[in-house]
Amino acid sequence: MRILVVNPNTTASMTDAVVRAARGHASPGTEIVGLTAGYGVDGIDSAFESLLSAVAVMDRVTTYPDPFDAVVMAGFGEHGREGLMELLDVPVVDMAEASAHVAMMLGRSYTVVTTLARSIAAIEDRLSTAGLRDRCSGVRATGMSTMDVERDPEGAVRAVVEQARLAVEQDRAEVVCLGCGGMAGLDDAIRDALGVPVVDGVGAAVRLAESLVGLGLSTSKVCTYARPDTKPTVGWPLSAHLPGGAE
Amino acid sequence: MRILVVNPNTTASMTDAVVRAARGHASPGTEIVGLTAGYGVDGIDSAFESLLSAVAVMDRVTTYPDPFDAVVMAGFGEHGREGLMELLDVPVVDMAEASAHVAMMLGRSYTVVTTLARSIAAIEDRLSTAGLRDRCSGVRATGMSTMDVERDPEGAVRAVVEQARLAVEQDRAEVVCLGCGGMAGLDDAIRDALGVPVVDGVGAAVRLAESLVGLGLSTSKVCTYARPDTKPTVGWPLSAHLPGGAE
Amino acid sequence: MRILVVNPNTTASMTDAVVRAARGHASPGTEIVGLTAGYGVDGIDSAFESLLSAVAVMDRVTTYPDPFDAVVMAGFGEHGREGLMELLDVPVVDMAEASAHVAMMLGRSYTVVTTLARSIAAIEDRLSTAGLRDRCSGVRATGMSTMDVERDPEGAVRAVVEQARLAVEQDRAEVVCLGCGGMAGLDDAIRDALGVPVVDGVGAAVRLAESLVGLGLSTSKVCTYARPDTKPTVGWPLSAHLPGGAE
Amino acid sequence: MRILVVNPNTTASMTDAVVRAARGHASPGTEIVGLTAGYGVDGIDSAFESLLSAVAVMDRVTTYPDPFDAVVMAGFGEHGREGLMELLDVPVVDMAEASAHVAMMLGRSYTVVTTLARSIAAIEDRLSTAGLRDRCSGVRATGMSTMDVERDPEGAVRAVVEQARLAVEQDRAEVVCLGCGGMAGLDDAIRDALGVPVVDGVGAAVRLAESLVGLGLSTSKVCTYARPDTKPTVGWPLSAHLPGGAE
Amino acid sequence: MRILVVNPNTTASMTDAVVRAARGHASPGTEIVGLTAGYGVDGIDSAFESLLSAVAVMDRVTTYPDPFDAVVMAGFGEHGREGLMELLDVPVVDMAEASAHVAMMLGRSYTVVTTLARSIAAIEDRLSTAGLRDRCSGVRATGMSTMDVERDPEGAVRAVVEQARLAVEQDRAEVVCLGCGGMAGLDDAIRDALGVPVVDGVGAAVRLAESLVGLGLSTSKVCTYARPDTKPTVGWPLSAHLPGGAE
Amino acid sequence: MRILVVNPNTTASMTDAVVRAARGHASPGTEIVGLTAGYGVDGIDSAFESLLSAVAVMDRVTTYPDPFDAVVMAGFGEHGREGLMELLDVPVVDMAEASAHVAMMLGRSYTVVTTLARSIAAIEDRLSTAGLRDRCSGVRATGMSTMDVERDPEGAVRAVVEQARLAVEQDRAEVVCLGCGGMAGLDDAIRDALGVPVVDGVGAAVRLAESLVGLGLSTSKVCTYARPDTKPTVGWPLSAHLPGGAE
Repeated sequence: MRILVVNPNTTASMTDAVVRAARGHASPGTEIVGLTAGYGVDGIDSAFESLLSAVAVMDRVTTYPDPFDAVVMAGFGEHGREGLMELLDVPVVDMAEASAHVAMMLGRSYTVVTTLARSIAAIEDRLSTAGLRDRCSGVRATGMSTMDVERDPEGAVRAVVEQARLAVEQDRAEVVCLGCGGMAGLDDAIRDALGVPVVDGVGAAVRLAESLVGLGLSTSKVCTYARPDTKPTVGWPLSAHLPGGAE
Repeated sequence: MRILVVNPNTTASMTDAVVRAARGHASPGTEIVGLTAGYGVDGIDSAFESLLSAVAVMDRVTTYPDPFDAVVMAGFGEHGREGLMELLDVPVVDMAEASAHVAMMLGRSYTVVTTLARSIAAIEDRLSTAGLRDRCSGVRATGMSTMDVERDPEGAVRAVVEQARLAVEQDRAEVVCLGCGGMAGLDDAIRDALGVPVVDGVGAAVRLAESLVGLGLSTSKVCTYARPDTKPTVGWPLSAHLPGGAE
Repeated sequence: MRILVVNPNTTASMTDAVVRAARGHASPGTEIVGLTAGYGVDGIDSAFESLLSAVAVMDRVTTYPDPFDAVVMAGFGEHGREGLMELLDVPVVDMAEASAHVAMMLGRSYTVVTTLARSIAAIEDRLSTAGLRDRCSGVRATGMSTMDVERDPEGAVRAVVEQARLAVEQDRAEVVCLGCGGMAGLDDAIRDALGVPVVDGVGAAVRLAESLVGLGLSTSKVCTYARPDTKPTVGWPLSAHLPGGAE
Repeated sequence: MRILVVNPNTTASMTDAVVRAARGHASPGTEIVGLTAGYGVDGIDSAFESLLSAVAVMDRVTTYPDPFDAVVMAGFGEHGREGLMELLDVPVVDMAEASAHVAMMLGRSYTVVTTLARSIAAIEDRLSTAGLRDRCSGVRATGMSTMDVERDPEGAVRAVVEQARLAVEQDRAEVVCLGCGGMAGLDDAIRDALGVPVVDGVGAAVRLAESLVGLGLSTSKVCTYARPDTKPTVGWPLSAHLPGGAE
Repeated sequence: MRILVVNPNTTASMTDAVVRAARGHASPGTEIVGLTAGYGVDGIDSAFESLLSAVAVMDRVTTYPDPFDAVVMAGFGEHGREGLMELLDVPVVDMAEASAHVAMMLGRSYTVVTTLARSIAAIEDRLSTAGLRDRCSGVRATGMSTMDVERDPEGAVRAVVEQARLAVEQDRAEVVCLGCGGMAGLDDAIRDALGVPVVDGVGAAVRLAESLVGLGLSTSKVCTYARPDTKPTVGWPLSAHLPGGAE
Repeated sequence: MRILVVNPNTTASMTDAVVRAARGHASPGTEIVGLTAGYGVDGIDSAFESLLSAVAVMDRVTTYPDPFDAVVMAGFGEHGREGLMELLDVPVVDMAEASAHVAMMLGRSYTVVTTLARSIAAIEDRLSTAGLRDRCSGVRATGMSTMDVERDPEGAVRAVVEQARLAVEQDRAEVVCLGCGGMAGLDDAIRDALGVPVVDGVGAAVRLAESLVGLGLSTSKVCTYARPDTKPTVGWPLSAHLPGGAE
């Protein structure tokens, strides 16, 4: 089984970390292919950047030349899941949603600890839109940007532990979700410090993608996620027009 | 990996069907062990029967003599998930919840087609309590009891297809969940008739249980699902006191 | 009018306290009969114990030999109300729900002060399932178990007052519900300390049960709470098989 | 115990019917005093009329010369409950809310059958504001105005039965609430026709008021319903200024 | 375009302030006419007073002798919007709702800072009933009554700033609504202190009323807000019966 | 005052129609500038196309060379509002949200009549994310695509009237919102046929944008919609790289 894991930002080292986490959590026999957004920013911390990444992710996946069985979107709260579901026949699993699905099977309520306060709304919207927010005790921010997390993983562990502890003590959270693709791989250290389950979203998404493929199930094409009609599309894929072409 | 799949009613042939479905959907290398409730009724169609089954299921699982990695509860809307999560250190996956989790990754909204109208409330409660009802377009009943389904699977397929079609056309459902353990194995026939994804809850639960085990995650013990204090418990396990003993 | 008041745990002295509270709040002419669960634990603080009690309560009530007009379930957040409603033709009033009904007629919002933090989820579920949670400002825990409350009523008063004061000051609660059957009889002391209405759930349930009987109303049998079909039930009533038999 | 039952409209014959229903449902020893609004309209079918009645009801009750133990507001969806709770130290029970409280103890969901479609919003608002709408399967209208009901009770029974039957069959309602003070006394005929519990709101409110008095409980004065500060109030009570004076 | 701006209390100087604010925010060419309630209290801080004001406002507006294009209700959380919508063919804009509409276009969530804690419920109800509460991060009280605000505007600014700062820091509010007609004109000082948008409800309501008129739209008369049937109405308009007559 | 009205698709004739509608509804003195997406599709009927349009709209607006006072997004349910709010200091008004704001001031509940059934979810998400869905009675589809509407406006009027009539009769809608930018200008014909208010979203958005500008208010920059940090952005603006350059 081949799963594409798409990093929505342009930082190749972050793709590497995500792929490492994906491989660490995947079943034996699952091949993980990492993709990096071809345009956009190095770390996504705003809606502008998230919308840009949604298009870059759709662009990258739809121009991938080989067959694959599922796609994992390795961004937390980013846009684009609905678009990719329309365009593909294979399952698409969003990392933020996968985290919530897994967390809800493990405890009464879960918290998300993310990067900047300005990203809280995007994550709440992603969870609400997916119908997964009822059991969320709240989203908390460390104040570190995506690139801060990338540059200082130990500091990120400390900052996540601090917020997660508040979530457990004040909000009655029972499970912690790491709310940033860049936090992939930090789960063990955080769980050791807190004594509650910590969900690595990349791992969660890979396992859920494997489950859907194993069950022989994929996106319903009956209405919302039917393939769009073929229309004249100006400038798509955008990557074909960028310096370096369709890569 | 060994997964216990517990049939909450006392009908051994239904356990067999559930185990067959579980094995059909499990990953290679997963061992499925079927357990049957030691007391209660042959098919659960009421809250009284569901509550009785919750205790019978906890009884059966906690007296199982060998090690295991996860438990799948093969009832749809039955009580007992919270109790079993407290008693065990390994993951517990409820079939109704697993169906919803999987369905929500496949489409905008899902329907549940169940047996009798009187069971709709129990399923709604199970989904609400799990925080999974937002994307449910409604629960519909075929009017066939659990034992009717067991006795007449072809009639059950027809009845489910009829209700599921109404759900797709009138309620805008995009995915169908089979709302009865006894419907295990009917998913292919129903999907062929409808053209929308059909989720077999037993298969979904087995795959999600595998995922949790594979991720190294289990129930949070920080509060709600901590192991109960050891107390003098009169008459527990109940099976030890019933004719036939602890089996 | 005869009302059965069922203590879901096995502690006879707690039944006595509950019966005293019930009689203290009942109308003249109402006969209160106390019943004690025949198996389970001495004080319920978990879902496992609650599910066991649900069966024990159904067992005890359905084997009660004499006629009665209504049943009051003297547990706070325990399972079993739906099952008993199916089995009986007379009204069944749950103590947690009765507390909420009464509290909602007295103020804008109410708090529940219960025993252990691990029980908060069960109470929230009971209130949500009954459609009574909108006006709940939150459930707060004293940290005392049911048996702690039984052993140290004065300490319980102090602990409830402390949490209730926080609820009034921080959560804008205007009415306090005592979230444990074992707190029956403590209401006057707590109200004197706080200056807000304090609802004793046993008293509330008895009065509401009297009201339903007086109005000539009982459980709707049209769908959800219709009597279950008669089926072969293995091992029911469970009490008949336990040491001491049907008592 | 003396309970004031206030008819919010100016039709004395409707007050008589309400008082008859109240007496028919009250406990022995409860004295029912009927009051009629001193200004406003003969039957309330709009928000304008409802707001006018709220003031007339507060006016009438606060100028009642003798002591009383509780007030029942015999309008369905009318304004004024919050105001009266502020002004009085004794319990105030609204007929619409009382109907919902009672109905929720009897079945999984309830419907309200009212007069004109234009009144549906007011009833929904009353139930939502009271936190009692979760279990309402919907409000249905007969198309008969309050005065139509008064003039043609047999036609009202037929019209309510027709709408209630649709609620049971299409909306899965299990209990029926009569959504108009003028329907007081029609409950038996409707129940006989439908086979589901029918709640007469006047009776429900009287019994719940008795319960609150019997429990020694009344409105919380800690915040929202504290007595308003004494201020210069121009023209209050309004009745003092109307032809006929303070009546 | 002529817009009536109705002060629901009897204090003419507060009407003057409201009119000043309205004129300061209105488009060129809009004529603002201030009306003052003819009975009731000098500053509304309770449901009793609010209900009285609703009738006084309807009375004042329906007896206004000249034509007008829209009505602005300059109370925050007061009753009466629904009644006035029924009685008139021109748009009616409630100041609390207008504040929320405008705030929701400016930020992710908004807070309301009002006068006394006892008024929080009324504002929450007004917003809920209008379907505008989802994005409200909470309502906070300064502890100053309406008349306190009128007498000490500088103290009011300080108190609002203090609560608004808590709302921004603790509740993640991004926009502040001034929750009292008497706070009209304080918006600039508060915005300067806080650095977030501050919505003056009177200005917001005037601009939205202008928009509706400009769009050629008015209240739907198809059901809920249809004009009430003409009925014999005892004592209406009440002002005709008060000392000073119909004014 | 200059308002940019951005058509999210690439069809210039549809921009013309939108601009005509905007000018028809704008205040005297407001200058309307129409912009057309520089890449994407001729009519948006899917999430893929919507996400592409979001980027194209941000691209077009941020490269607009002259000053402006507000932006109106002339798509119904399209993505991008949050991104544009971050990037700009002037108000951004989404046409779908503006329709809901206006509709909620006119009636108890509103319906949206849109193009294809597959777009219903996007509109529901847009309304939910904006906190404006509570009063929506439902979204209904005509079955005509955006380009069908463009090609056959008379057929669109008939189809909208048919669905809107069902919404009024079956869902109790009291106001109709036209759920497609391409329906701009059809409002009068639909209102004449139905007798309920019909909201043209372009007109509504223009008037609300004028109101925000007139009130001196703009997007809160305190958290969610703060301007994104300046980062190296690969390939932005995308239009600079497309054939024809930055246009």
